Amino acid sequence: MDILRLHFSVKNSLFQDIIPFWIKNGLDKKNGGIFTCLDRKGEIYSYDKSVWMQGRTAYIFYTLCLQYGIDPYWKEMADSCICFLDKYCIDDSDGRMYFTVTAEGKPLRKRRYIFSESFYTIAHARRYSVTGDKSSLEKARNYYNLMLKIYDNPESDPFKITPKFISSTRETKSLAYPMILLNVTYIMAESDKENESEYKDIAKRLIRDIRKFRHEETGLMLENLLSNDEHFFESATGRIVNPGHSIELSWFLADSAVWLEDPNLLLEAEDIFWKAYNFGKDEKYGGILYFKDLFLKPVEAYEHDMKLWWVHTEALTAAIKFYDYTKKDTYLELFDEVYDYSNKNFADTEYGEWFGYLRRDGLPTEPPCKGHTYKGPFHLIRMLSESERILSKLIKKPFNCDNY
Amino acid sequence: MDILRLHFSVKNSLFQDIIPFWIKNGLDKKNGGIFTCLDRKGEIYSYDKSVWMQGRTAYIFYTLCLQYGIDPYWKEMADSCICFLDKYCIDDSDGRMYFTVTAEGKPLRKRRYIFSESFYTIAHARRYSVTGDKSSLEKARNYYNLMLKIYDNPESDPFKITPKFISSTRETKSLAYPMILLNVTYIMAESDKENESEYKDIAKRLIRDIRKFRHEETGLMLENLLSNDEHFFESATGRIVNPGHSIELSWFLADSAVWLEDPNLLLEAEDIFWKAYNFGKDEKYGGILYFKDLFLKPVEAYEHDMKLWWVHTEALTAAIKFYDYTKKDTYLELFDEVYDYSNKNFADTEYGEWFGYLRRDGLPTEPPCKGHTYKGPFHLIRMLSESERILSKLIKKPFNCDNY
Repeated sequence: MDILRLHFSVKNSLFQDIIPFWIKNGLDKKNGGIFTCLDRKGEIYSYDKSVWMQGRTAYIFYTLCLQYGIDPYWKEMADSCICFLDKYCIDDSDGRMYFTVTAEGKPLRKRRYIFSESFYTIAHARRYSVTGDKSSLEKARNYYNLMLKIYDNPESDPFKITPKFISSTRETKSLAYPMILLNVTYIMAESDKENESEYKDIAKRLIRDIRKFRHEETGLMLENLLSNDEHFFESATGRIVNPGHSIELSWFLADSAVWLEDPNLLLEAEDIFWKAYNFGKDEKYGGILYFKDLFLKPVEAYEHDMKLWWVHTEALTAAIKFYDYTKKDTYLELFDEVYDYSNKNFADTEYGEWFGYLRRDGLPTEPPCKGHTYKGPFHLIRMLSESERILSKLIKKPFNCDNY
Repeated sequence: MDILRLHFSVKNSLFQDIIPFWIKNGLDKKNGGIFTCLDRKGEIYSYDKSVWMQGRTAYIFYTLCLQYGIDPYWKEMADSCICFLDKYCIDDSDGRMYFTVTAEGKPLRKRRYIFSESFYTIAHARRYSVTGDKSSLEKARNYYNLMLKIYDNPESDPFKITPKFISSTRETKSLAYPMILLNVTYIMAESDKENESEYKDIAKRLIRDIRKFRHEETGLMLENLLSNDEHFFESATGRIVNPGHSIELSWFLADSAVWLEDPNLLLEAEDIFWKAYNFGKDEKYGGILYFKDLFLKPVEAYEHDMKLWWVHTEALTAAIKFYDYTKKDTYLELFDEVYDYSNKNFADTEYGEWFGYLRRDGLPTEPPCKGHTYKGPFHLIRMLSESERILSKLIKKPFNCDNY
């Protein structure tokens, strides 16, 4: 494998393609914030704004500033999104956040889930790391505590939305909650260093909760579980495996393993990664499938055998991080393989960026999109910047004529 | 075209394949009702029951009894589903119905929409036509009136669920409501003949409401509209066209046109049909696409360029009904063409019935399913029984040796 070329390709994609695509096409100079519903050419096809994406964009552009030094364009993007969030995306009546707002920031939809809050939290945590502004740390801590409180006691949620399911019949819980909280906890600890030991305790507790979603016989992670920690296999809902989600989880766990100095957790994370990757791999068409049933029965979501960009960025992020943590060459080889598939299928050589959604055969749905309520400058930039960082360590070897 | 062979194929599919598939695999002899989450072979992959499907199944099997005479297996299926609905699927606290329940009938989810109620209503209306039992007519009338009341005044809804959208920013309405109510009104009028003139007035009002969803320049039906009847094109939501839904609407309107003796409405229905069909037709792979954007921009639903079974049954139902109402050969030719595509792509020659969900290229998603929370013995049987009825009129010509 030619690490030099791989690193060059990753770096080039990050700085010459993906970052400029979003700064040029997404930033809303009039109202602030970012539009993420962008078509193949980068033109806006929907002016509704995703609150998740405001937080994720702010987080990622502050992270770039932290990693590479402050670039005024990156900081403008991050500042614009975080101000848009603070001005328009919080429901003052209860402090919970919206899910979508109009271009001008008027609220369209507010959902029960705490994901808007999670991205708001990591955005402010990173802003504190970049700027040292204590008010951002305070906001991050407030929302972090709110999320934890709702997680520990759903009835404490100030948003009194009608429950989605009738819990007296079947009370369930979702892997997404402890998983996203673990990642947020890790990022909080990076920013709020003086409270690190508190975050470590919370992370350990979340990891224990996450383990309950693992199916013992197969080692696969299930997306849903009964509240009493039992599986429920009579319903298709209880058997959903989302390989991309499990793969993303595996590197959240790997990050935590290194942070918590827990070598067994790193082994466990590797095992979760391989089980999920091998289960999700599409032997027929290449790439990784979106949803699968634990027992290989049909999956209700129509789109279950499509190929989604983020599933592939998460496999790449996991592969490069596991390589970094274990130095096993097999991860570098896997990175190379998935990167090759992604460049051949997701990357748009004509207009830049990656297509979001491919049919199973690897062709983009038509008309294709580059952005969406759920796709903005996040997964791909996170993967590329982490890969650039890790690969650059490999090429910074002393000059040696024996190599030529 | 060989009408005799076409009729034979339709009749054979209806009686030898589709009906037996559901009676054999779906009927829950223990708890009553029907399981519709069936895999390729007809095995149950999820024991959660869809309330929509209990109502639709009862409706369709009573309809078969009405059309072909009472068959004890059909009546058992219909009776079992309607009893399951009455016993388990109504929330006694407010009279609204659930969306999903367990195998035993314990409530899992209750949604805001009135579709469970709509299928319950038509099931009882048909049961009254088959059995003459006045209590069914009364139930149908009660739920019909409840739906109309909620449609006319959403605040009168006894189910006080948190609104999905923040209406102070953008208050929208959906084509699905007046459309389903029009079909239910038509079926109510067939059963409740003494109140026919009342139903006619309501149908005329609903047709006026439906017309507001039409986009003047293209003649296409939009799925969503602002409450003040204006379009909203700045959001992708305001531009969604669902060709299959528009095609289904076109034959609801055609039925009404004949019923209301309104030849202009029939012309309008034909125009809606052709505009939707030509817009949805996939010139590249054949079949009809699921969602399209009015201005051909990207559609947010990942599955937008998939092929769904019901879109194709509705095109077939529309084609055969328009043929019946207009005697234009072009509809018979179109029926033949779409039936051929469907038999080549949706029909499973190995295990019977139709695959529910195909990728754009016409191959089923894998693992494929025959049933689903949204797919049961309804669209396909409705299409086949209507086609059988109409085609049989064409072959019942006097015997004539000149033809041989």
